[in-house]
Amino acid sequence: MSLLETIHDPADLRKLPRNQLAQLASELRTYLIESVSQTGGHLSSNLGTVELTIALHYVFNTPYDRIVWDVGHQTYPHKILTGRRDRMPSLRQLGGLSGFPQRTESEYDTFGTAHSSTSISAALGMAVAAKTKGEDREVIAVIGDGAMSAGMAFEALNNGGVAECDLLVILNDNDMSISPPVGALNRYLAQLMSGQFYTNAKNVGKNVLKVAPPLFELAKRIEEHAKGMVVPATLFEKFGFNYIGPIDGHDLDSLIPTLENIKHLKGPQFLHVVTKKGQGYKMAEADPVAYHGPGKFDPAVGLTKPATPPKLTFTQVFGQWLCDMAEKDSRLVGITPAMREGSGMVEFERRYPKRYYDVGIAEQHSVTFAAGLACEGLKPVVAIYSTFLQRGYDQLIHDVAIQNLPVVFALDRAGLVGADGPTHAGAYDIAYLRCIPNMSVACPADENECRKLLTTAFEQDTPVAVRYPRGSGAGVPMEEGLQPLPFGKGEVRRTRIAAAGESGPQGIAILAFGTLLYPALAAAERLNATVVNMRWAKPIDTELLLQVAATHEALVTLEEGAVMGGAGSAAAEALNAAGLVKPVLQLGLRDEFIEHGDPAKLLSMQGLDAGGIEASIRARFGDLAARVAPTLKVVG
Amino acid sequence: MSLLETIHDPADLRKLPRNQLAQLASELRTYLIESVSQTGGHLSSNLGTVELTIALHYVFNTPYDRIVWDVGHQTYPHKILTGRRDRMPSLRQLGGLSGFPQRTESEYDTFGTAHSSTSISAALGMAVAAKTKGEDREVIAVIGDGAMSAGMAFEALNNGGVAECDLLVILNDNDMSISPPVGALNRYLAQLMSGQFYTNAKNVGKNVLKVAPPLFELAKRIEEHAKGMVVPATLFEKFGFNYIGPIDGHDLDSLIPTLENIKHLKGPQFLHVVTKKGQGYKMAEADPVAYHGPGKFDPAVGLTKPATPPKLTFTQVFGQWLCDMAEKDSRLVGITPAMREGSGMVEFERRYPKRYYDVGIAEQHSVTFAAGLACEGLKPVVAIYSTFLQRGYDQLIHDVAIQNLPVVFALDRAGLVGADGPTHAGAYDIAYLRCIPNMSVACPADENECRKLLTTAFEQDTPVAVRYPRGSGAGVPMEEGLQPLPFGKGEVRRTRIAAAGESGPQGIAILAFGTLLYPALAAAERLNATVVNMRWAKPIDTELLLQVAATHEALVTLEEGAVMGGAGSAAAEALNAAGLVKPVLQLGLRDEFIEHGDPAKLLSMQGLDAGGIEASIRARFGDLAARVAPTLKVVG
Repeated sequence: MSLLETIHDPADLRKLPRNQLAQLASELRTYLIESVSQTGGHLSSNLGTVELTIALHYVFNTPYDRIVWDVGHQTYPHKILTGRRDRMPSLRQLGGLSGFPQRTESEYDTFGTAHSSTSISAALGMAVAAKTKGEDREVIAVIGDGAMSAGMAFEALNNGGVAECDLLVILNDNDMSISPPVGALNRYLAQLMSGQFYTNAKNVGKNVLKVAPPLFELAKRIEEHAKGMVVPATLFEKFGFNYIGPIDGHDLDSLIPTLENIKHLKGPQFLHVVTKKGQGYKMAEADPVAYHGPGKFDPAVGLTKPATPPKLTFTQVFGQWLCDMAEKDSRLVGITPAMREGSGMVEFERRYPKRYYDVGIAEQHSVTFAAGLACEGLKPVVAIYSTFLQRGYDQLIHDVAIQNLPVVFALDRAGLVGADGPTHAGAYDIAYLRCIPNMSVACPADENECRKLLTTAFEQDTPVAVRYPRGSGAGVPMEEGLQPLPFGKGEVRRTRIAAAGESGPQGIAILAFGTLLYPALAAAERLNATVVNMRWAKPIDTELLLQVAATHEALVTLEEGAVMGGAGSAAAEALNAAGLVKPVLQLGLRDEFIEHGDPAKLLSMQGLDAGGIEASIRARFGDLAARVAPTLKVVG
Repeated sequence: MSLLETIHDPADLRKLPRNQLAQLASELRTYLIESVSQTGGHLSSNLGTVELTIALHYVFNTPYDRIVWDVGHQTYPHKILTGRRDRMPSLRQLGGLSGFPQRTESEYDTFGTAHSSTSISAALGMAVAAKTKGEDREVIAVIGDGAMSAGMAFEALNNGGVAECDLLVILNDNDMSISPPVGALNRYLAQLMSGQFYTNAKNVGKNVLKVAPPLFELAKRIEEHAKGMVVPATLFEKFGFNYIGPIDGHDLDSLIPTLENIKHLKGPQFLHVVTKKGQGYKMAEADPVAYHGPGKFDPAVGLTKPATPPKLTFTQVFGQWLCDMAEKDSRLVGITPAMREGSGMVEFERRYPKRYYDVGIAEQHSVTFAAGLACEGLKPVVAIYSTFLQRGYDQLIHDVAIQNLPVVFALDRAGLVGADGPTHAGAYDIAYLRCIPNMSVACPADENECRKLLTTAFEQDTPVAVRYPRGSGAGVPMEEGLQPLPFGKGEVRRTRIAAAGESGPQGIAILAFGTLLYPALAAAERLNATVVNMRWAKPIDTELLLQVAATHEALVTLEEGAVMGGAGSAAAEALNAAGLVKPVLQLGLRDEFIEHGDPAKLLSMQGLDAGGIEASIRARFGDLAARVAPTLKVVG
């Protein structure tokens, strides 16, 4: 029986003698690689936190003491050590373990994370609550250097440094966010490391020394004096934190004594830990970006290229379009908040490095920076996931939309996202964007339309978002060139076949917004329904809408987005505004957070595959469906 | 003729000899006090920027060089010096000058601001654009110390410090945001000032010295050496900026030479200027908070209390409720992002200082901090303007709603805001909140309902927003105590009077969400319409809605919020979901940004006063209105 198998919760871990922890780390790392190679998931970041996770649960009294893991995709070691080892094969699958901490999954998951840079704020809330309630718990936020570049982390530091409560911020500095790091902070952290790493053991001792109060006080006074005169105070000390480090985050003999000492210090503490993404697995160390979130693989062989190239993804379509449009129009600049790979901008950066801006994890800045560029006549394209644009929402309204500046928002991961779960859902963008004056929102039905609608968006003098889902689409042939589609106009894709002798409005029309056009077409064959590819959630094609409404008995709206406030409601509003009264069935994502799992399965559970769409329409318009059946027989 | 009257644009200013600038400053200050005392508006902050504004336009070649004013309520001197002196009496009035910079108002207003902390991002965009286009313009962001605490400013600094372009950030440090300053940054700035102010003239010389390149290089090298060894580098240097200051922002003899020197420096520069809010007007210096945004007053007398106390505002209702609920429930904690006065929390802070958290201008942090508190069993109430919650939108979704934590959002300034204009409009919250699962949104119709619905919100175990407008409501009597209203339930406030012999659905029902209930009741008298006080935009009272829909021929929805995606659409969705087909007229704010002006006039222009509501209903349901007329006669 391995050591790892004896650990059912952190209490078991804390019973181990310290000299066995290195072996545990080794077993944990081996288990991780095997486990992730079978399920896919995040790898590099988890290999980097093995020792830190062991040390934290060893030193602190979890779950009474709270650990908040920023982003949280590095919590597999934490999950394994907190009673979830057996469930690791279910990772990121429907009904299985989440890839992120979830409060509903374990009492050790004190705060659900996934979007970056929330941990210090949440931990500060918990620390303040502990103080308020007179509880002596320790609260620890573990945050990466990439996440530290987001403004939110600074807002929290700015408050935490003066809050007079026991908050420990651990900077897990692996010189990496998902994309390579950018910005002044990163450069600064590198300076801190280069000057002080290892040689700093003495300094660590001084900062966390706690032998007897008088000696400690003396050391502290010397230290403060020294700081003011010789050693420049770190950034974090300027925010009121006691800065300790940097220390080697893979060395349990550094980590554990340091944490044990810090545990007894009062007030806000900041521990700078240096780790290596992919630590202990050579292939991941060599290419942490590739091993950031791999699919299944053979650990002995590493990642291999699939024999047949998979279908073109929307991300790739965007990346290709961006390069092509950049070649045609020198005003184009591309902006990403730290998602170069995820947003398909690797090639663009290679070809147009001076027109490429990775601003780091800084969504707010990315949007207003784009507004500034647009003021001066450039044409910014902000490539951002639907879920991350939520971070730049005020900036989109206040800096882009009110000033009506021509910024293109390329919204990747719109709709269901699958394994990443509810935190990453791109479900709300249609609702939160279309209520904003001056904004337009395009919803391409397939890859080729995505390319064309990006061109349409780029041609406007106003802000336009183009939303497209994760993964690949219908696999339609791609047209070359940069031909736009008409702004704000949809098209009829299938016309209901009329029975002999019909007159007046008849049958059902499905109005599809986005990629659900294809299941709608399949369902329509069985229902003899008209299918309209609406293409734009805003402006909605009112002319087409009213024409279709006038010629059909009932309408069905369909979108991969929240029904509440979504494109279907845009259609309903337009009908109401025109005074046209017509039965409307609004299909889309229900008003619930959708768990992680296979995207096709989740779509089906939401009733949004062809069968589900057909069933919903029959359930609602049974009489109409029955009436179209004879027509179908004539056609079929 | 005064000096000021000779200045029609900054070119005129630049013709003045330097020794006349002090007189100009004096005249400008006098003009400001007179002008603002007649129109109302921002005063303290504008008195603080008189010299800085003169110096910037004197030294830089505006509008070719770009000045971006953060927040922008301190731009009255800038407006006066850039050709808008004569229009100052129209300030913040319909059709008049905006209280903020607006690109559409003047070419000198390079970027529209109003929400804080956007200036560095926008200026960086402009500076990068200048570099890209090979233009040698200077770009200057002027940002206050309060605004600097927002994460967005740090995101921009983090990018600006490594951007290798000519960006000047001027920190206008007046030790004030609207509320007194908080946080570690503020404490740090105070340290910078106390140690170095004035005595630092030497250091200023060194940093901006530009006699001859060799000497300059030498000085620079000495300085760098010195920094590393003796003088602790400032926070801003750690971000890659050349830090200069602090200097006296009311001393033109410091400002102008310093700016002239900086103008020739390459790369990111950071100038720390110290000013005094209210400078030169004793009463404002003594109480800058009161004179932050006064109404009209007599400059010789200062602000006076109105003889008859004005009607209770919703803000006051909230403030009173917060104290009362805090007294009853010790779990309550109150959070504001730097809007203690505006959100009505002065008394709460006085009575419960340990349960009051002003986090500074840090909306993102405020929401996640609340989530952390809620995790530990406290009951946070986040008091935030509707428009500012846009800044914490992702945090509301990701940290509060997904985890379904009991956080109350007290959304002040929901709907039209009047003089502050489009940047502050609370028009979108219903749309952007109700698409989020687990969220609820209450829309009290009057002050008394506001108090009760806050209690209802507080009693839930889920996140609830209570939205209420700026100013006062219908002036209904207030009930004491902490009685809630039922969760998610509306009420019929007026029942249409049936004519003799009627059967089946008849007439019109108006479904009012929020304070427009009262004009709806007035309109309904003339239309003999039923009026429903819906109270909740989410969950919508489906039972009541369907019952009303079944008994009327047509429905009208009414809200002080964007029609697109708003509460009316919630009603339309519910009808569609129930398969109930009924004509619906959706009234609310149109899909356009609404300029500043008198709120009542703006509401009327949107057709949302009693007359407008009646007219819209007659225009749409003329036949029904005609049919109800005889009934009216019977009633009347």
